Amino acid sequence: MAIQGITILGTGLIGASVGLALRAQGFPGSIAGWDPDPEQLHTALSRGAVTVIADDPLTAATQSDLILLGGPVFTILEWLDRLAPVLRDNQLVTDVGSVKGALCERARDRYNAPGQAGFLPGHPMAGKEIGGAANADPMLFLGSVWLFAECRQGSAMAPAARALADAWRSWVGKFGCRTLDLDPARHDVLCAWISHLPQFVSTAMCALLEDEFAANADLLPVGGRALREMTRLGASPFSMWRDIAHTNSEAIARALDALEQRIAHLRENLKTPELRDEFDRANRFRLRSPGSGS
Amino acid sequence: MAIQGITILGTGLIGASVGLALRAQGFPGSIAGWDPDPEQLHTALSRGAVTVIADDPLTAATQSDLILLGGPVFTILEWLDRLAPVLRDNQLVTDVGSVKGALCERARDRYNAPGQAGFLPGHPMAGKEIGGAANADPMLFLGSVWLFAECRQGSAMAPAARALADAWRSWVGKFGCRTLDLDPARHDVLCAWISHLPQFVSTAMCALLEDEFAANADLLPVGGRALREMTRLGASPFSMWRDIAHTNSEAIARALDALEQRIAHLRENLKTPELRDEFDRANRFRLRSPGSGS
Repeated sequence: MAIQGITILGTGLIGASVGLALRAQGFPGSIAGWDPDPEQLHTALSRGAVTVIADDPLTAATQSDLILLGGPVFTILEWLDRLAPVLRDNQLVTDVGSVKGALCERARDRYNAPGQAGFLPGHPMAGKEIGGAANADPMLFLGSVWLFAECRQGSAMAPAARALADAWRSWVGKFGCRTLDLDPARHDVLCAWISHLPQFVSTAMCALLEDEFAANADLLPVGGRALREMTRLGASPFSMWRDIAHTNSEAIARALDALEQRIAHLRENLKTPELRDEFDRANRFRLRSPGSGS
Repeated sequence: MAIQGITILGTGLIGASVGLALRAQGFPGSIAGWDPDPEQLHTALSRGAVTVIADDPLTAATQSDLILLGGPVFTILEWLDRLAPVLRDNQLVTDVGSVKGALCERARDRYNAPGQAGFLPGHPMAGKEIGGAANADPMLFLGSVWLFAECRQGSAMAPAARALADAWRSWVGKFGCRTLDLDPARHDVLCAWISHLPQFVSTAMCALLEDEFAANADLLPVGGRALREMTRLGASPFSMWRDIAHTNSEAIARALDALEQRIAHLRENLKTPELRDEFDRANRFRLRSPGSGS
């Protein structure tokens, strides 16, 4: 079943990039867009990420095959609430949020059953530290992994919604993504380690250096590429990460606590042979990581 | 006073990059090279980073105007010991080591006085996580800062050595570097924050993830650019960082301890308004940092 009409609710960096990627890959249908920020919406329209501005987001959603939810996690949660009563079982809701367990919890009993719309939780592992439709990029997803974390609460999508889900997975493949299916809880733990941990560590390092160098900011440019890379994520917007911190706090806290202990271990062993073991482990990690030579 | 002959002792990544940069900028003299690893040395020669292999490093040094010391800090310390008795006050020793206080301590009373060679401690804030002459790059220093940290122990370089130091600073400028002079102790504290802290945090994160994902390494490629950047430094060689950890351990331990506390603070405030304050500080830090848009 081909997807003919799409509504994107939240046309910031990711939502607008999806629109641009769809059109770059020849999506022939209409893409209605809506965003709480009119500037984001008009930028998305002027860049061609959406074909039309939705005057009323709920009306646009009821007239679309697929509704893509962008924006912070709490915003996505609200849309799940508002959309459930107005959609039918030949429609699919999908999202690009960074946390999945809370979304599946909220969708329970209201999606993925006969008479209900389908909900396919998705999470492209791509982004930039600077949000906004102005930074959207049709190639943003190329070479990255698009995670799916279908809710498994004993329910099943209606056949029409399932066909739309299959069609959406095909589009994601056309964006240049590998897809991977994970249980929602496992998704959230994985992302705590490989996405949320790096973000919060970079934020902590930036905040610390901001205080430490308040009177000597002129010295900061001395740090080269190493400092630049380790602090790039410090530019990430609070609005997005507040919701992630709230909805995945246990897994994030465990990862941060483990890293605190690991840094302390290293600090206590700056002059012992254990330092070599830690560097050896880190070297091994990099050897098995993608792009290890870059 | 023009520099006519140079000896580079340690033709790994930085030493060989200096040789390549010198020749790219038209240095007309001879560059003798020596390295404890014959492979590094022959790679440096075949790439044109040195013009001749020094059969005996001490003899080559006595016949050069300038001796550039590369390699780990302890290796540089040994060269300072070995070179002091054989050099004269119309010669200059400089280095590219990451720690400066220990070097000035070692050079005390044996350099920078009439009858003694000059010693100009230097530190280019550029590098790669993968060492070796094969990765050397004549453009490595372009746009970076080359720190100098002259020893201030009541002594002064002989005029001929001072003229060589001025000439060397000119060459560093030709490499595309801005130069900055710091007191050696201040240099070491600064580098603990902006260079050594990022390295040890990245190493700790890599070692932690190596343990955590031992049975699920296939999931690591899911992490996108954020994970890749935050762990790139994990590939850095222990041989280089062991010496830095030993010779700047107090300042590094203070910086690591401060970051542990900052991460813990963030972990304890995942759901409080303090999280916004930390993100705001991190955002401010990035706004005043170079390359904040990249």
